[in-house]
Amino acid sequence: MVAPIITLTTDFGDRDGFVGVMKGVILARAPEARIVDLAHGISPQDVAAAAFVLASSYRYFPYHAVHVAVVDPGVGTERRALALATPHGTFVGPDNGIFSLVLRDYMTGPTATPQGPPGGATVPVPPSCRAVALTREEYWLHPVSRTFHGRDIFAPAAACLAVGMAPEDLGEPVYELVWKGPPTPRREGDAVHGHVIYVDRFGNLVTDLRAEDLPDGRLTVEIGGRSAPGLASSYAEGRPLAALIGSHGYLEVAYREGSAAQALGVGVGAPATVRPA
Amino acid sequence: MVAPIITLTTDFGDRDGFVGVMKGVILARAPEARIVDLAHGISPQDVAAAAFVLASSYRYFPYHAVHVAVVDPGVGTERRALALATPHGTFVGPDNGIFSLVLRDYMTGPTATPQGPPGGATVPVPPSCRAVALTREEYWLHPVSRTFHGRDIFAPAAACLAVGMAPEDLGEPVYELVWKGPPTPRREGDAVHGHVIYVDRFGNLVTDLRAEDLPDGRLTVEIGGRSAPGLASSYAEGRPLAALIGSHGYLEVAYREGSAAQALGVGVGAPATVRPA
Amino acid sequence: MVAPIITLTTDFGDRDGFVGVMKGVILARAPEARIVDLAHGISPQDVAAAAFVLASSYRYFPYHAVHVAVVDPGVGTERRALALATPHGTFVGPDNGIFSLVLRDYMTGPTATPQGPPGGATVPVPPSCRAVALTREEYWLHPVSRTFHGRDIFAPAAACLAVGMAPEDLGEPVYELVWKGPPTPRREGDAVHGHVIYVDRFGNLVTDLRAEDLPDGRLTVEIGGRSAPGLASSYAEGRPLAALIGSHGYLEVAYREGSAAQALGVGVGAPATVRPA
Repeated sequence: MVAPIITLTTDFGDRDGFVGVMKGVILARAPEARIVDLAHGISPQDVAAAAFVLASSYRYFPYHAVHVAVVDPGVGTERRALALATPHGTFVGPDNGIFSLVLRDYMTGPTATPQGPPGGATVPVPPSCRAVALTREEYWLHPVSRTFHGRDIFAPAAACLAVGMAPEDLGEPVYELVWKGPPTPRREGDAVHGHVIYVDRFGNLVTDLRAEDLPDGRLTVEIGGRSAPGLASSYAEGRPLAALIGSHGYLEVAYREGSAAQALGVGVGAPATVRPA
Repeated sequence: MVAPIITLTTDFGDRDGFVGVMKGVILARAPEARIVDLAHGISPQDVAAAAFVLASSYRYFPYHAVHVAVVDPGVGTERRALALATPHGTFVGPDNGIFSLVLRDYMTGPTATPQGPPGGATVPVPPSCRAVALTREEYWLHPVSRTFHGRDIFAPAAACLAVGMAPEDLGEPVYELVWKGPPTPRREGDAVHGHVIYVDRFGNLVTDLRAEDLPDGRLTVEIGGRSAPGLASSYAEGRPLAALIGSHGYLEVAYREGSAAQALGVGVGAPATVRPA
Repeated sequence: MVAPIITLTTDFGDRDGFVGVMKGVILARAPEARIVDLAHGISPQDVAAAAFVLASSYRYFPYHAVHVAVVDPGVGTERRALALATPHGTFVGPDNGIFSLVLRDYMTGPTATPQGPPGGATVPVPPSCRAVALTREEYWLHPVSRTFHGRDIFAPAAACLAVGMAPEDLGEPVYELVWKGPPTPRREGDAVHGHVIYVDRFGNLVTDLRAEDLPDGRLTVEIGGRSAPGLASSYAEGRPLAALIGSHGYLEVAYREGSAAQALGVGVGAPATVRPA
């Protein structure tokens, strides 16, 4: 039998023991599980960053992996706790938009358009997915704290799923999920307008523009008042600025042997425009 | 057979390879061991922080887990190396007070009061525990360095315990341990006076006051010249300051979507007073 | 059967998911592998630091371990991807000097002297080692990105080696490797002149002088305009400066309960001179 795999993505860092405690809870209930740290250095409460990290990582794990994501400023409030089964892995975490970019991979037809005001939008659960609110308290760790559902609700749920339980065993089906994805890139004549959606450790500026969104031929990327020629074929080719398709499939802007975020003084949300050169 | 579990808590960080080397030593001697990182981002030489992390985490692991803790400013001096068996897990590390808060969970009757001057106090080993000085050199990794007993003494000892050896196999019993716990909270009329004993990654100020130490009814917590109403039922409820019982069972003061430590300008050691509102 | 062991050393940090993704790729191809994080907090693009961490760590792992190292500013350029089999472990990573200090452990006779201009030197593969360029594309993860060979080339190669393939199965033998080791220490009368080659998390200044390079008897170490008496037998002995032989076997300079790097204002490359006291 292949061992269960559970990945963990949090803003818990490496100094308080929070992640270790979640692993203790998992190992007590699923002793065979292989636990993989996906990222724990996400900035405190940066749900959008966690959404990006999850979406750019989960496809590299086997289908049976369970992905736990806990960036959870609403812990202890009425926000729901979720298990979300997709065609490629099952996800566990708060219903606060953290799964938006994973969901986008499965949204088609009527599920493709988020509904509602900015900041309060929802999407229907895509037809190829199933979502459940984790309401079955008998699977929680008791006493349940107000502040650490990673330990008390999400880790136990992940262990249950890893040993073969179905999401439906853990609670009630739900049909609408909170959506916090980035706005859709906009086309205007020859130009495409997008935004920086992520800044990685190296200061590379990742935009929401995919290779297939870009005009053919040689390009210029305008960002932070500067122009980067594109597409480069490696970071080392920057002189010093370079635009290239990053490992996640998005256009990114890099600075040779340095940080583009620092050099350009821009971050998440900054506009990026691509035009034919 | 259930796999051995070994947790690691250190101030070694993530850039020098120290933790990885300890894992190499463990895997060479206990190839089946599951190794869990509890915390490695503890501030250099902050024994008190490690003591808090250990004490708030170990109960979430199975009973058979071995917990290695290496925050060890006295490495290479006469300070003893310890194995400490408790009713819930076995601990390995220097005898420098790092196990004080774990010990407190088992101190009753005559073992409940630390003896000696501040900074030099000791406690008897509680009746439900056994402690051993790791003096049997045949189990060390040779040549033993002056500066890295995590690799040369503690990791090998943890591997021995994980594969089933008894603490007594590794050295001589000891009966008094170094104590570095916080002072006892003080009651004065309706008020209870405690201190901040830990600041977590989010800037939450954790005090040494437990739920059972607090007056009944609505409370006010005075800290850093400000007042926080309590008890809140979630971080999100802060306006912006909130006092609540944290996941470890202690009263903590939080700042909504921010750092209470930064907002109040206080840290470990700061006084906190709770009064009926 | 003993489980395969794969260690990972990168400058990927803990916030972007890069390391987790590499583990996903490995587990999909070598589900039994034990994966150990050696260091991920190496400063971005600091190949020399990774070389030091690798060389001071690999001997503590079993012989069959595979060590993956990805600090790779030249990713996507013509720099080669390597597998390097040594008498004690197999190494996988870019041919950019990251294995220089491991190679030095096996360089003897004609292989002992790097050839070529500073910054562009090479060494022959030592007789006890074998090196291969990872050119067999059928083992890569496709589509191969321009920017993340850790995921697309190195992790798959490590998984192949971990499950028993030979380096030669993965590409063409190569006979010269890029060299980026530090210059050889220089003796002048009674004095030995070396350099700081690494600064660890605690601010300890590690030099390239080994115990066997030093004059007998009491010593003085001159560094950053100050003198440290040596050899101390523990960090705690510093008053406040101390020189001692560190856990990796090199002379290091430490500052009692503080950072020597900060106290002396020096870093990698700073000269250090040892004289009889």
